Amino acid sequence: MSEKYVIGIDLGGTNTVIGLVDVNGNILAKDDSIKTQAHPDLEEYTDSIAAVIKKLAVQCGCEGKLEGVGIGAPMANYYTGEIVNAANLPWKGIVPLGKLIEQKSGLPTKVTNDANAAAIGEMKYGVARGMRDFVYITLGTGVGSGIVANGQLIYGHDGFAGELGHTTSPVLEGRQCGCGRKDCLETYTSATGIVRTAKKWLAERDEPSSLREIPVETLTSKMLYDAAIAGDKLANEIFDFTGKVLGDSFCNFIAFSAPEAIILFGGLANAGELLLEPIRKQMNENVVFLWKDKVKVLKSSLPGADAAVLGASALGWND
Amino acid sequence: MSEKYVIGIDLGGTNTVIGLVDVNGNILAKDDSIKTQAHPDLEEYTDSIAAVIKKLAVQCGCEGKLEGVGIGAPMANYYTGEIVNAANLPWKGIVPLGKLIEQKSGLPTKVTNDANAAAIGEMKYGVARGMRDFVYITLGTGVGSGIVANGQLIYGHDGFAGELGHTTSPVLEGRQCGCGRKDCLETYTSATGIVRTAKKWLAERDEPSSLREIPVETLTSKMLYDAAIAGDKLANEIFDFTGKVLGDSFCNFIAFSAPEAIILFGGLANAGELLLEPIRKQMNENVVFLWKDKVKVLKSSLPGADAAVLGASALGWND
Repeated sequence: MSEKYVIGIDLGGTNTVIGLVDVNGNILAKDDSIKTQAHPDLEEYTDSIAAVIKKLAVQCGCEGKLEGVGIGAPMANYYTGEIVNAANLPWKGIVPLGKLIEQKSGLPTKVTNDANAAAIGEMKYGVARGMRDFVYITLGTGVGSGIVANGQLIYGHDGFAGELGHTTSPVLEGRQCGCGRKDCLETYTSATGIVRTAKKWLAERDEPSSLREIPVETLTSKMLYDAAIAGDKLANEIFDFTGKVLGDSFCNFIAFSAPEAIILFGGLANAGELLLEPIRKQMNENVVFLWKDKVKVLKSSLPGADAAVLGASALGWND
Repeated sequence: MSEKYVIGIDLGGTNTVIGLVDVNGNILAKDDSIKTQAHPDLEEYTDSIAAVIKKLAVQCGCEGKLEGVGIGAPMANYYTGEIVNAANLPWKGIVPLGKLIEQKSGLPTKVTNDANAAAIGEMKYGVARGMRDFVYITLGTGVGSGIVANGQLIYGHDGFAGELGHTTSPVLEGRQCGCGRKDCLETYTSATGIVRTAKKWLAERDEPSSLREIPVETLTSKMLYDAAIAGDKLANEIFDFTGKVLGDSFCNFIAFSAPEAIILFGGLANAGELLLEPIRKQMNENVVFLWKDKVKVLKSSLPGADAAVLGASALGWND
């Protein structure tokens, strides 16, 4: 039996990272030389990607053993392989990315958004191995999600399903979301959202906090984490609040798809128990009784730095 | 080619209705002689059902042509065929209904909750024919739901997925739900919920309304409908409010599974445009821009009185 490999491409606003991955989720070779914004010409960009794929295959002695290409990209439509009106990418309108890469690499190519790709990666290589029903939440600059039911990712009628960051949170402060709506979950629980909470509370409340020593415009979620771990009471309350908001939303997600687990990924997920503990408490106190203490809340087990490429690569397998 | 038929069983708290159905969704024979509460002995109850199935088959000349049995029942688990802790049925705890009917009828038997069964019925015989992604909402005494994604009903990890009536509504009045939570969607948008709104508004507000001529404890959703159709302003506002609450929740459901349509069934759905119009308006004003004006809101096309039996029967087909 000859070994098979796949290519995973993490198409970000800044870098395009390409990895060659084996069936066990080992990245055998990786290239991050393509800067996305430096390639306003789509033909030239996709030529560069095809060249890197060939280079990686040669480097690993894998020519002829590549099974497919998976791409994780913002605003990507799984059904059409297109990227549609992505705000942070250099190509506007509808971009037939999957078709171009398929033509130029000669490999079957699938495209989906980064959160969906990460969910599939988690199912193929991570903590969701063997699960047929789970909800995947990425807590980064925004809040993304991928939903797996009956062992399949839910793409929806149009290929864009799973935008749980834009379901409304149970807190109705009127926080404006970049999507145009108010009080979307991501306005409270993304890395950006938790900083918004911190700024608001620091302005409204007058209790002492080590956070007051930091210029407010430079605050990051990492600083909030460090302060909370160091014992700062306000910082701990901020994580507690953020966890409660997530826990409340998870009650709704559970009523929808009755997952075995909800899995957290991304910057804020690294806060670990600081966030997981209030999530579990709020969730189990408020979920419909059928699911009380039954749904696991887990942290991704994919290696953070490589998770996006691994997730994308998981799409490349022919199964 | 010999014609095939299925049996559909609508197991309600009062009646057990059994129908023999053809591939086009025609009910060829129906029996509602079994009163559920009159059969506290499960063995005797399932014997009676098996006898009715045999009787209907003989009546239609369908012996040997039955492909399977589908049962819609409260608190039914699709995976195990069991009914679990159903409040309104005479058998307590875990009831192995599917297994008993399968043994006694000699036919493959599947069980799911009534809303899931209705969703499958709509996909097989109704307005959802040909759809692979839709959300089905039943607006009855409570609010039930069935979610179809990738052409399959979502059962979830435990077989109980799709309890959208117990997601939290965006209105936070603190309305107590029978499930123990507060502000569940069904506390506002079930037939019971809309009457709660009417009672509250009639007590809090002093504008004139024909509803004030009705003793408040006898109010029904049908009376509210009649008043609204007759031009009563308050009754119209009540439907408008209820539609808005549904429309807001639908924004969240759409962000979850990106359905082609959301389909309404049940008593309150009969209000038609009185409810559909405010739903569509609120939904399209508030949904994430990707889905603005793209998701249909439809009324079930199953014949109301027979929909439960038809839905259950759709489970019986071997596909």
